Amino acid sequence: MINRIAILGTGLLGTSVGLALRGAGYRGSITGWNRGAEGAQTALKMGAIDAIAGDPIEAARQSDITLLSVPIYPTLDLMEQLAGVLGCSHLVTDVGSTKGQITAAAARLFNTPERAAFLPGHPMAGKERGGAELGDANLFRGAVWLFTDVPTWERSSTASALVKSWRDFVTAMGSRVIDIDAARHDEMVAWVSHLPQFTATALSALLEDEVGDAPELRDVGGRALREMTRLGASPYSMWRDIAYTNTAAIERALFALEQRLVHLRENLRTPELREQFERANEFRKE
Amino acid sequence: MINRIAILGTGLLGTSVGLALRGAGYRGSITGWNRGAEGAQTALKMGAIDAIAGDPIEAARQSDITLLSVPIYPTLDLMEQLAGVLGCSHLVTDVGSTKGQITAAAARLFNTPERAAFLPGHPMAGKERGGAELGDANLFRGAVWLFTDVPTWERSSTASALVKSWRDFVTAMGSRVIDIDAARHDEMVAWVSHLPQFTATALSALLEDEVGDAPELRDVGGRALREMTRLGASPYSMWRDIAYTNTAAIERALFALEQRLVHLRENLRTPELREQFERANEFRKE
Repeated sequence: MINRIAILGTGLLGTSVGLALRGAGYRGSITGWNRGAEGAQTALKMGAIDAIAGDPIEAARQSDITLLSVPIYPTLDLMEQLAGVLGCSHLVTDVGSTKGQITAAAARLFNTPERAAFLPGHPMAGKERGGAELGDANLFRGAVWLFTDVPTWERSSTASALVKSWRDFVTAMGSRVIDIDAARHDEMVAWVSHLPQFTATALSALLEDEVGDAPELRDVGGRALREMTRLGASPYSMWRDIAYTNTAAIERALFALEQRLVHLRENLRTPELREQFERANEFRKE
Repeated sequence: MINRIAILGTGLLGTSVGLALRGAGYRGSITGWNRGAEGAQTALKMGAIDAIAGDPIEAARQSDITLLSVPIYPTLDLMEQLAGVLGCSHLVTDVGSTKGQITAAAARLFNTPERAAFLPGHPMAGKERGGAELGDANLFRGAVWLFTDVPTWERSSTASALVKSWRDFVTAMGSRVIDIDAARHDEMVAWVSHLPQFTATALSALLEDEVGDAPELRDVGGRALREMTRLGASPYSMWRDIAYTNTAAIERALFALEQRLVHLRENLRTPELREQFERANEFRKE
């Protein structure tokens, strides 16, 4: 039933989706577009897409399903452009890391009986570095793929069938599909994804300033250091849009961590430190 | 030449040293002592030690080399007790995570021509949980083993030979031996080991309070969360002594991280965020 998929943005996620679709047995066409020509060429060479589109809007128009796998602001831009040219035989979906603005735009621009469907999605998978060359057919295997779909949206039956197809594809790629409210999504990811990222960035940047040039660094640093700073390699280009579109929730989480660190620092020699270790132990209990 | 080794404290590190010594071809006796009888029994069953001692001081007296693999305050206690009963045909060494107080005690109590030698050591290896049952013959393979020995200490020739033997054993266990000044050691580990640990503890404890009961937690949390909180499982019993014996350096590091997090939080929507990501990227560049 689905014969034409367009992937707009063939970075790590877009390329991985193309490869995973092939791995899941999808035999239709996959047209790819990327802002930088090199990323599209790499995705083509890897077999993630079978043709490169010159124009993303035209590629979407000629497809049943269009995946937006670009950062959040480009996703919002493409949504504006696509809403006017696609009809109810089209589905657009995305992989953006914050869902509040994208889900609101989906309500405003899509998801009426006459218009294309938009299914806001967020696979909880990635790597600390991006790029088509890191694309991986198994990236989504065992991962959770969140959708912030809204039950009251009224779609044409064609559009509804396309939504169901994409959810089935995601399952076939090895992911577990979970539905969550967009506001709750953004609140939860602020705690469990954005806070860990900004903490790793702050810690890595601090260590670069304090001991980056220390000759003993490579000798003394062990697994704890490597692990707690791995996310320090994450690119600003991706996190800028997340910081802009989930600012208040991230501010709250960062502020709470600052307070917790103050509390630990002031209690390094009191029994309160035990309490904090025990709460931390509790979090790690399965 | 070395025929009798005593391991006082058969937790993760002590048990691993026993197993690694056997793996490195050591054929003499290994006598173990542990505060809890169960840990000693486990180490015995695993082949890390071949006899359990009832009294740690007597076990040390009957050995050429004694390894103290207990937390820092028990290490300092044992040093006080052992100094009076051991002579210049003995070497005592340790695995404590802070070296200032232990190295000072070594200067005060050991390392004269008439007394036993004390070689302060710190293998940069471990796991987030302790216990003899996690003992691993390969724990030290590829790791760095730091020594904060002092070149001006005057030891008997027997004691000096024992020091050389232990350094050779450590190399044979697969570790790279590095010498470092004790004060510099404690400053560096505050940044690259203690700060990551207390950050993980603060983050884990905070998340336990904020989202520990959230039904969405297991769905939304991914690799970043698991990795940034793994050290949250570390036991207070071990970190208490580290917090007590390296307090000022840990306070400085924690305070600097608090300031850095404030800076990030206040710049989530300014170009300064890019600067912090770039510094973090720099730290991770190899």
